Amino acid sequence: MIDKLIGKIQKTNAPIVVGLDPTMKIVPEHIKKAAFREYGETLEGAAEAIWQFNRGIVDAVCDLIPAVKPQIAMYEQFGIPGMIAFQKTVDYCRKKDLVVIGDVKRGDIGSTSEAYAVAHLGKVQVGDSFLAPFDEDFATVNPYLGSDGIKPFLKVCNEEKKGIFVLVKTSNPSSGEFQDKMADGKPLYELVGEKVAAWGEECMGAGPYSRVGAVVGATYPEQGKLLRRVMPHTFILVPGYGAQGGKGADLVHFFNEDGLGAIINSSRGIIAAYQQEQYARFGAEGYGDAARAAVAAMKEDIGQALSARRGSL
Amino acid sequence: MIDKLIGKIQKTNAPIVVGLDPTMKIVPEHIKKAAFREYGETLEGAAEAIWQFNRGIVDAVCDLIPAVKPQIAMYEQFGIPGMIAFQKTVDYCRKKDLVVIGDVKRGDIGSTSEAYAVAHLGKVQVGDSFLAPFDEDFATVNPYLGSDGIKPFLKVCNEEKKGIFVLVKTSNPSSGEFQDKMADGKPLYELVGEKVAAWGEECMGAGPYSRVGAVVGATYPEQGKLLRRVMPHTFILVPGYGAQGGKGADLVHFFNEDGLGAIINSSRGIIAAYQQEQYARFGAEGYGDAARAAVAAMKEDIGQALSARRGSL
Repeated sequence: MIDKLIGKIQKTNAPIVVGLDPTMKIVPEHIKKAAFREYGETLEGAAEAIWQFNRGIVDAVCDLIPAVKPQIAMYEQFGIPGMIAFQKTVDYCRKKDLVVIGDVKRGDIGSTSEAYAVAHLGKVQVGDSFLAPFDEDFATVNPYLGSDGIKPFLKVCNEEKKGIFVLVKTSNPSSGEFQDKMADGKPLYELVGEKVAAWGEECMGAGPYSRVGAVVGATYPEQGKLLRRVMPHTFILVPGYGAQGGKGADLVHFFNEDGLGAIINSSRGIIAAYQQEQYARFGAEGYGDAARAAVAAMKEDIGQALSARRGSL
Repeated sequence: MIDKLIGKIQKTNAPIVVGLDPTMKIVPEHIKKAAFREYGETLEGAAEAIWQFNRGIVDAVCDLIPAVKPQIAMYEQFGIPGMIAFQKTVDYCRKKDLVVIGDVKRGDIGSTSEAYAVAHLGKVQVGDSFLAPFDEDFATVNPYLGSDGIKPFLKVCNEEKKGIFVLVKTSNPSSGEFQDKMADGKPLYELVGEKVAAWGEECMGAGPYSRVGAVVGATYPEQGKLLRRVMPHTFILVPGYGAQGGKGADLVHFFNEDGLGAIINSSRGIIAAYQQEQYARFGAEGYGDAARAAVAAMKEDIGQALSARRGSL
C-alpha cells in the first residue's frame, strides 16, 4: 500500500491528503435539512448528513489527490450510526481508488493491539471465515505503550501489505509537554523516531520506503528537518497545514531529496473552504467546488515550495 | 461518578473491576454454535456470541463487583456488529447498576479529543437535541499528546460528572521503552503522574478523589508505590492482575491508607476462568459460575493483602 500511495502521489503530482473530519458546523444547512427531514434530529440524521457531505467532497476532489484521512472521532461521536457513516466513507473512497488513512490513533498491548490492527487493517477469524471489519489502507497509531503496542500492527501490515503512521511529534501547542522531554540526551520524539525507523526495517515496501510511517506536525518544521534525517525510509504524514498554521515553505524539509517521503494533510482548510472569505463565492451549495479550488491552491503552494527547493539544491 | 464508584467499592467490599474482553477463543462452543446457527459465521454471528457471553458473565458476577471494563478493541475487531455488541454490553451493565469503564485508550487534540470525550462520556448536539452516543461512566485516555488532548475530556467530565483514567505506567513488558526514560531527572511516567494530579485538581469529586484517574500496571509495584505518593487524590486503575502476573500482595501499595484509591482489573482471569484447571469442574456451560468463583478468590486475595497491611500500619 505504501507503494500504491507513492504511485498515486506521483500520478496526481500532489503529496496531499484531505482530512474528512466533518462536523455539524461544517456541513451546509441544505444537507442537514434533508437528512433531518428523513431521520429527525437523531444520531442517524447526523450520520446521514456527514455521509452525504463526504460524498460531495470526495466526488469533487478524488481525481486531484492520492489519499483521504477520515478522523474516526468525528464519526464515533455519533455512536453506531456515526460508525456506519465512517465505514460507508471508507468503502466509497476505496471504490474511488483513493488510499484511505484511518486516523484512529489506536494503541494498546499484545492481543488488544492485535485486535485494533485487525479491526482497521486486517481480517478477523469467525469460525472458518476471515472477514475484513473496517478495512482502511493505513491507520495512525499511538506509541506510548512501546513495542508491545506496535508489533501486532507490523504483523498485520506485512500480512496485508498495509501500513501505519506512528505519532512522533504532534502538531498541537502542548505536544512538547512529554514529546520534547530530553531523555538519553535527546528529545523523546527523536527516540520515538529512531524506533519508527527500526520498526520500519521489518516492513519495507518494494521501493525505498517502509510500511511504518510517522506523524510529524507541520507546525514544527525544525523538528521535521531533524526527524527526516533520523527516519530516511519513513513516509511522514504531516498534519497542521492551513487551519493550524503550517505553510508550504515550512514543509519542504519534511520531504526527501527525491521529492517524496511526506504527505501533507489539510482537513478544515479543504472541506470547510466554502466558509472562508476566499472561497465564499462558491456558496454553501458549491462546497465541493470550493474544496476543489482549495486543493488546487494547496497543490500549487506545496509544488512551488518543492520547486524552489529543487532549484536551490 | 468517582463518588458512585467509591460507594460501590465500599458496599461490595471489592476494589475489583472485571474486564469484559471476550474473544472467539474464550466464548464457549455452545454459545458460538447458537449464534452461528442464527447469523452464520459472520461479524453479526461473532457479535451475537460475545454479547450473549457477556450477559452470562454479568448476570453471574454483578452483585459481587462495583464495575466492569469492556475493552473496545475486542468489539471493534468485529466491525459495526461488534460496536453494537459493545453498546449493548455498556447499556446492560449500567442497567445492572455497574460502573462502566470504557477501556478505549483514546487520545487526540482539541476538537478531535472533544469528539472522543463526547462519544464516550458526553452528549453530542444534533440540531437542537443533545444525544448520548456510547455513554460509559469512565474512559481510559492516552496522554502522549499532552494537555491539549486531556483538557477536552476534563470539560466533559465536569459537565457530566464522569471520569477518565489516564495511562501513566502500563503493565506490558516494553512499557519502559518510553515511559521509563529519565527526563528532568525523573522517569517520564512520574512527569505524567504529576500532570494527572494537576489535571485532577480541576476535577474533584465530592470526596477526596478526583475525576481524573490513572492507569498503572500491577506488574510494576515499585512504580505504583511512587506514583501513589505523587498522585494522592487520584484513583488508580490497575491492570495486569492474574493472567499478566500481578498478585494481591504486590498491590497493596497502590492503595491509600484509607483502603481506597485503587481498583484492580482482571479480565481473562475471570471471564475465562472455566478454561483454567482450577475451575475446570464448572465446565463450559458453567462459565458464569466459574467467573463468580474466580471473583470470590480474587476478592479474598486482595482483601487478605489489605488486611495484612492494615495490621502492620
